[in-house]
Amino acid sequence: MPINASGAPARAESVRPDGAGHAFSRAVSDGAAHPLCNERQNQQLFNYEKRVKDAFDNIVPVLRQISALQHEGNFEERAQELARKQLGFELPCQILADAWVNQLDMRGLYAWCMFETYRRFSDDFFTRQDIDTDEDFQSFLLRCGFHTMDVSPCADGRLAHVISYVLRLPYREVRRKSYAGAMFDIEDSLEKWIETEFFRYREGRPDTADKPTRYLKAVVYHFSSGDPEHEGCAAHGSDTRRASEAGRKSLYAFQQAVENSFCCGASIDLLLIGLDTDTDSIRIHVADENGKIDIDTFVDTGKVYAATSGMNADQAMVTVEKTVRAASSGATPGMIDLVCRLVTNNISQLEYVRRNYRGAYPDIGHAERFIGVGIGFEEIQIRNLTYFTYMNTVEEGAADLDVGIKIFTGLNVAHGLPVPVVIRFDYHGHVPGARERAATSCRRVAEALEARYEELVKKGLFHTLQAIRDCAAGERIEVLGSSVYAQSSVGAH
Amino acid sequence: MPINASGAPARAESVRPDGAGHAFSRAVSDGAAHPLCNERQNQQLFNYEKRVKDAFDNIVPVLRQISALQHEGNFEERAQELARKQLGFELPCQILADAWVNQLDMRGLYAWCMFETYRRFSDDFFTRQDIDTDEDFQSFLLRCGFHTMDVSPCADGRLAHVISYVLRLPYREVRRKSYAGAMFDIEDSLEKWIETEFFRYREGRPDTADKPTRYLKAVVYHFSSGDPEHEGCAAHGSDTRRASEAGRKSLYAFQQAVENSFCCGASIDLLLIGLDTDTDSIRIHVADENGKIDIDTFVDTGKVYAATSGMNADQAMVTVEKTVRAASSGATPGMIDLVCRLVTNNISQLEYVRRNYRGAYPDIGHAERFIGVGIGFEEIQIRNLTYFTYMNTVEEGAADLDVGIKIFTGLNVAHGLPVPVVIRFDYHGHVPGARERAATSCRRVAEALEARYEELVKKGLFHTLQAIRDCAAGERIEVLGSSVYAQSSVGAH
Repeated sequence: MPINASGAPARAESVRPDGAGHAFSRAVSDGAAHPLCNERQNQQLFNYEKRVKDAFDNIVPVLRQISALQHEGNFEERAQELARKQLGFELPCQILADAWVNQLDMRGLYAWCMFETYRRFSDDFFTRQDIDTDEDFQSFLLRCGFHTMDVSPCADGRLAHVISYVLRLPYREVRRKSYAGAMFDIEDSLEKWIETEFFRYREGRPDTADKPTRYLKAVVYHFSSGDPEHEGCAAHGSDTRRASEAGRKSLYAFQQAVENSFCCGASIDLLLIGLDTDTDSIRIHVADENGKIDIDTFVDTGKVYAATSGMNADQAMVTVEKTVRAASSGATPGMIDLVCRLVTNNISQLEYVRRNYRGAYPDIGHAERFIGVGIGFEEIQIRNLTYFTYMNTVEEGAADLDVGIKIFTGLNVAHGLPVPVVIRFDYHGHVPGARERAATSCRRVAEALEARYEELVKKGLFHTLQAIRDCAAGERIEVLGSSVYAQSSVGAH
Repeated sequence: MPINASGAPARAESVRPDGAGHAFSRAVSDGAAHPLCNERQNQQLFNYEKRVKDAFDNIVPVLRQISALQHEGNFEERAQELARKQLGFELPCQILADAWVNQLDMRGLYAWCMFETYRRFSDDFFTRQDIDTDEDFQSFLLRCGFHTMDVSPCADGRLAHVISYVLRLPYREVRRKSYAGAMFDIEDSLEKWIETEFFRYREGRPDTADKPTRYLKAVVYHFSSGDPEHEGCAAHGSDTRRASEAGRKSLYAFQQAVENSFCCGASIDLLLIGLDTDTDSIRIHVADENGKIDIDTFVDTGKVYAATSGMNADQAMVTVEKTVRAASSGATPGMIDLVCRLVTNNISQLEYVRRNYRGAYPDIGHAERFIGVGIGFEEIQIRNLTYFTYMNTVEEGAADLDVGIKIFTGLNVAHGLPVPVVIRFDYHGHVPGARERAATSCRRVAEALEARYEELVKKGLFHTLQAIRDCAAGERIEVLGSSVYAQSSVGAH
């Protein structure tokens, strides 16, 4: 079971011999919740996280049982019964039927189960909406003086929950686009900025262009308080300072690109956020009156949590605001309000981690379940589930992909399990031909991946699922195919 | 000399045994120019075309002479003198110096000369502006009711002169983006539409958004009147009907994409143009009152030329307008004015082809001098000079590239000459980091090309030049490197 948390606590403990780095988890007793914590939301989010992760982590134990049965009579029936009962779906008959010839193709079965679990989880997300959204957020954001919040976190799976959990923001109303090291694509962001402002001018949404609201771009870099030199951001050599400086540099570059490309005072506002992936506490760096961001000046929510946990809610709010003001000289009142909201939202998440994970995740390192490649994945709002590589082509995404394969070589391949890769392209169904182009992209990327990781493919250690989604219609994903059948029949004969 | 016109007349003659297909060239005597012809512009354009093509076509004869000298005394000096006098630049010393060991690396020298000639031609274009531009066009276009004219021709080299020569439009004021088979990228076009409308709203250029002007998208498909079954559009199996229908389908798709993606009556206007690549006569299909384009209804400029060549200018203009009206039921007065302008502009080009090429080009087939890969190439306004593959990645552009390599296998490789590929990425210099990203794209694409065409590379039959350009600053290209030196030293030792 290389991918569930069972082996992780030892790892997590070993890097924190003195318990350093997780101040807030020691600051409060186990009993009382923080006065600003949204306990109902915490419960709901935990139920959701647990249900999803359990579904993925159930695969290996069930397959172990099935493996043990493979040479017994009635194997196919018994395996299907087990799968139905414990996983909720049936296994592909062909793989089971071929088991008597050689061995059961466990790699194919594993990939098949991962993909089926992913499909069910994704369908669930788009049909049930288990994550509570902050309905008031868009209007609150406008009151703060921002018409758009565009967040680029690092693509690391330990940040995949940053919108819905860490910041407690509605995923539909905040743009998220992840990049390795949070070093986002300036040209892509410029296009998004143009599109956003265009809608304000042409259709008055979310507000009309004459309103003095701004586009807010945020970057989320990350670090590990427990094991800063190993479990930080791989793209920046696990160096917190480098990670934060790179995030700031990207923000400045985007701002300058807007200012240089358009006249009449066009600009954007910036926010730099650092995430401690062990504890989910954040550092918020607010720009000063000259628009400069100081790497060493920030609001540390772990400290705010500790300082306010004994207070009542009103006292705590006053302290939050005081702390935010102290770290945000020159910020607009709207920015201060927004940062206060982010701090209080995050306090719920700190309570969440304290209550459910004793203040720090057992899996402080990588423990993603699959790699997600392409454009889309709005449904991935859960920590350490997916290593993202947003890309159009393997040619451009190769470096990020190689990092993902390296991670999964440790997580899966070293244990004889394949790397499950979900290739996904979202499209706008109202654009003629868009569905076909998304399907073509899936096939092209699948071929390029199979060529790049040929050695793994040959050994059955690399499997892909191809899926597309009409994101304009808000529909479920459409699965186009998977390498599992092809591969398993090759292996069996 | 596979790439100059010397062998082509026989080919051109052989496919027109009865002289069919080039009506306009027989309709007038050799002496009198058409009354609507802009003779001054014709002379200027011909001087420019001749100067550029001569520079490229001079390479093989000069290299032949140099080849003959290679085992003589004083070879290096004599070769350099010849090159300086006849080509206008020196050859790389290293290649010449190594000639005594083996043979002179003619493939490397050829590629080097092509690249140097390209660089000089490109510099010339961006510094001298030899192509006359229609200064009045933007305001004329606005008066016709269009704020933008966006043209997607086929990427075939025989259409590279469509803006500056065939349609006689100012290349700076008309967007050109070429695609194989003229099947343009709908998503990319949507982005361009958004950007265009955004500038109207935000900066009032070229006009303010409240003006009832429209975005005009044109497609240029092509065919060969002399050899329709072989020299038409390769992407559509040299089938004129398929080519025109595919162009229309792309236009409809883009229009529908705009209408479906935006509210309040957002739409665009369409124009379908067919080009006879033998003669440069065009067919203009105007949409009817319901926005439908009929493949069989068009203005044929060859016929208009023939019908009006004996008239005086005023009579000819009346006939042009009458003919355009007859083929454009339901078109707006502005659209009729625009089409009349395109027809009269094209009459100059028909006169150009009649006068300079006896009514039909000797090179009715492919005779491109190099392949252009990447984003940019604004300077390529000359026919049959460049096979274009606009692309970000080889992964996406592979099919188009393979067609280009097939063409150059016939043109160059079959004669022992390498395929010269110019990799070029334009960037906006005012966007921080854009130059570095363009340079990275060059390197990435060069590597991907060398991997894809490894067999050719090994034999010295594939050479690349890497160049970038700050298109926002309107500057000359910046050459980053070339495969020639690396390859030639490998070959020599």
